[in-house]
Amino acid sequence: MAQVDDAAARQGGTPGDGTGVGVTAIAVHGGAGTIRRGDFPPEREAEYVAALEDALRAGYAILEAGGSSLDAVVEAVRQLEDSPLFNAGRGAVFTAAGTHELDASVMDGRNLAAGAVAAVRRVKNPVLLARAVMEQSPHVLLVAEGAEAFAAEQGIELVDPSYFFSAERWVEFERRAGRGPASGPAPAEVDGDASDDAKYGTVGAVALDRNGNLAAATSTGGMANKRVGRVGDTPIIGAGTYAENGLCAVSATGHGEYFIRNVVAYDICAVTRYTGVPLADAADRVIRDRLSARGGTGGVIAIDASGNIAMSFNTEGMFRGSIDAAGNLVVRMYRD
Amino acid sequence: MAQVDDAAARQGGTPGDGTGVGVTAIAVHGGAGTIRRGDFPPEREAEYVAALEDALRAGYAILEAGGSSLDAVVEAVRQLEDSPLFNAGRGAVFTAAGTHELDASVMDGRNLAAGAVAAVRRVKNPVLLARAVMEQSPHVLLVAEGAEAFAAEQGIELVDPSYFFSAERWVEFERRAGRGPASGPAPAEVDGDASDDAKYGTVGAVALDRNGNLAAATSTGGMANKRVGRVGDTPIIGAGTYAENGLCAVSATGHGEYFIRNVVAYDICAVTRYTGVPLADAADRVIRDRLSARGGTGGVIAIDASGNIAMSFNTEGMFRGSIDAAGNLVVRMYRD
Repeated sequence: MAQVDDAAARQGGTPGDGTGVGVTAIAVHGGAGTIRRGDFPPEREAEYVAALEDALRAGYAILEAGGSSLDAVVEAVRQLEDSPLFNAGRGAVFTAAGTHELDASVMDGRNLAAGAVAAVRRVKNPVLLARAVMEQSPHVLLVAEGAEAFAAEQGIELVDPSYFFSAERWVEFERRAGRGPASGPAPAEVDGDASDDAKYGTVGAVALDRNGNLAAATSTGGMANKRVGRVGDTPIIGAGTYAENGLCAVSATGHGEYFIRNVVAYDICAVTRYTGVPLADAADRVIRDRLSARGGTGGVIAIDASGNIAMSFNTEGMFRGSIDAAGNLVVRMYRD
Repeated sequence: MAQVDDAAARQGGTPGDGTGVGVTAIAVHGGAGTIRRGDFPPEREAEYVAALEDALRAGYAILEAGGSSLDAVVEAVRQLEDSPLFNAGRGAVFTAAGTHELDASVMDGRNLAAGAVAAVRRVKNPVLLARAVMEQSPHVLLVAEGAEAFAAEQGIELVDPSYFFSAERWVEFERRAGRGPASGPAPAEVDGDASDDAKYGTVGAVALDRNGNLAAATSTGGMANKRVGRVGDTPIIGAGTYAENGLCAVSATGHGEYFIRNVVAYDICAVTRYTGVPLADAADRVIRDRLSARGGTGGVIAIDASGNIAMSFNTEGMFRGSIDAAGNLVVRMYRD
């Protein structure tokens, strides 16, 4: 682990203020966008809620057993990647070429170690590969074929690209290409701006463990119909993912280009670091004020060193859930 | 240019405080590392100085003619890419596979538009492709083959990979692989930590134009002997490059993984934004204090809305130069 700073590692498990020690909390998201009450039949709604709950409970069980926030966020994201409901892992959307290219990242607030992968086509769980990059290489970001060669070396599960195929996504893809069936319901606009027909989405998790360590992980299939080789904010440390003990952990979802240009995940942490405002205010300032003013859409989940959870988005809804420091589980989809 | 924020674009050319309007200034760098007096024969030193001066003068001429800071930084970086002296463009180092993979990015502080490319193998001037991504696509980051397909569409010059071959770099590569000649001088350790034999380097430019617009551009051949697919901080907006009117523009060089994890370029701007300290203090705080404490090595060039230039590095030297608001040209290599 050549990338772990010795200076930071010496501080591992003892964040500056110690406020979070002993407390556990976790939050997950499954994409933001035009998610409106009435858009989903009740049985579909129940599927989303169940998937988010399952991921939350899996991560929380790790935290309650004394496990690390890193293990918790990776497991929560891995489960969401395995669900066909979300645009990450198995449910990834098609590129403009009718293929799939996946991105993911993870960051460990204990020592600022980070790992990320982009534009991989055969990795079943990109978040596991991102973790391997963090732990088994001196690098932070590996892309495309080089990333897959590393996956093979590390024994990370590779799948045939057909694993990512789903009939529902294909109909969506064909419709966008002007070849879709004329009838039938419009696809859900997750993370998207319906007006420009660009659909995108992401899953992610943030957590605080008993030792006061923060972690964040994010995974995506990218923007639907994206150009081959396009990389969004998900694998960009500072944009889609950031975690630093004593400060905060953030996972983002939305129109990735805006999140990159506005360095969204780190900026939320920077606002708390330099101005001292509470996390929820920092998240709202960056998402609802700055990002909105600059035309970007999406949202974040965030957690601070005391286990306070913030969720901020400027879209109509965001798939999201949390188990807070008091153990309360909440899962929501809509704005209110 | 779908990625340009309408809200920000409306502010174009009229930064918040207006202090920089009418003033022009530019700075460039060519890598940081163990650059020590006595390491370079005088004629080689003169070559470096001349190349940095040429790039500065080319960018400055654009600014003095009323051109944009975006045009100035792209032209300065393009010239440095064409020099075999620097690890970017023509002088790119070899990957572990004996190939070349180049990264670059550009950001326009006027509207926060940004473009970047990573892991391209046949693009003569990656900074020109980064600009094309910014201006001719809705995306910020394109990687690998997808980026080269876009280059071909856009008429960006592609070259045979042999263009990047240099005998000097090859000897360096062979020596690192244990096949080098036993005698002869050790290669210059640019951007590197001699102890781990990792060599890396980057070129970059930041500028302020007469309309108060800030811009930054950065380009690299990456870390010598890097794994195929490894991407450093250069194409990561917020890490290796950042520019925002009224605030600052930054281009970084150094051990990329640390710059990514510490979101170096944006963090310098964030310190000035949220604490109000002068740019030079912000750069020193992030590079000399935080990055050093965390084990990272490298440096930055930065410029603020008034044309103040800061250069901060924690290595023995950094190839750097500037033409300040008063028109004074300075080029330096060593710490003192």
